[in-house]
Amino acid sequence: MEINNPAVLEEVRQQFMRYEAALTGNDVAVLDELFWNAAQTVRYGATEQLYGYAEIQAFRAARPSKGLDRSIVKTQITTFGRDMATAHLEFRREGVEKVGRQTQTWVRMPEGWRVVSAHVSSMG
Amino acid sequence: MEINNPAVLEEVRQQFMRYEAALTGNDVAVLDELFWNAAQTVRYGATEQLYGYAEIQAFRAARPSKGLDRSIVKTQITTFGRDMATAHLEFRREGVEKVGRQTQTWVRMPEGWRVVSAHVSSMG
Repeated sequence: MEINNPAVLEEVRQQFMRYEAALTGNDVAVLDELFWNAAQTVRYGATEQLYGYAEIQAFRAARPSKGLDRSIVKTQITTFGRDMATAHLEFRREGVEKVGRQTQTWVRMPEGWRVVSAHVSSMG
Repeated sequence: MEINNPAVLEEVRQQFMRYEAALTGNDVAVLDELFWNAAQTVRYGATEQLYGYAEIQAFRAARPSKGLDRSIVKTQITTFGRDMATAHLEFRREGVEKVGRQTQTWVRMPEGWRVVSAHVSSMG
């Protein structure tokens, strides 16, 4: 299995940054697009465990649209073969001491690269 | 891409439960075995961000061997094709109010199924 094929890595990096821009810009349509539309998709957030695309979509629709900005401290993406990747992000929010962490698993679906699992938390 | 092929799902479930038993039993050899031995492996824990197998192994060696027991609240595993899976776990520790969450990405490497990315946190 090829690790970090440059072309695949670049594809994932572009979608990863597209997601980041949509998150901080509260572009819900892009966030919805980039999560896998399936009952098996899981997202663990700061204060919630969401199972299935419908729960994730409802969460997006309900969340406040302010205070979403964050600065990237560190990213690490790894691709496995042509169809799968893991993505890791450390971030800071203004006025928040604890570092935030985001992990995602991306899979190339027929419709494009999609997040099939995500986990966001604060350290400590 | 086949989702949740029963034979693949059973393979991953067995390794997932083997990891859980090793974690609560502090069987460091099995924990080390089941993480991918590579510089790209990442593990975000309650109080740490670990990049690369060497950092993860050092963390295992140094952590206390007491108070590791936890009870499973919920698990969800999804397989993608034959070589990749995501695994989700909610858990509780005695005397701790907040629910714990663990996510893992598993990949079938030549040496067997390995965790290539993991994230553990408490809710809230």
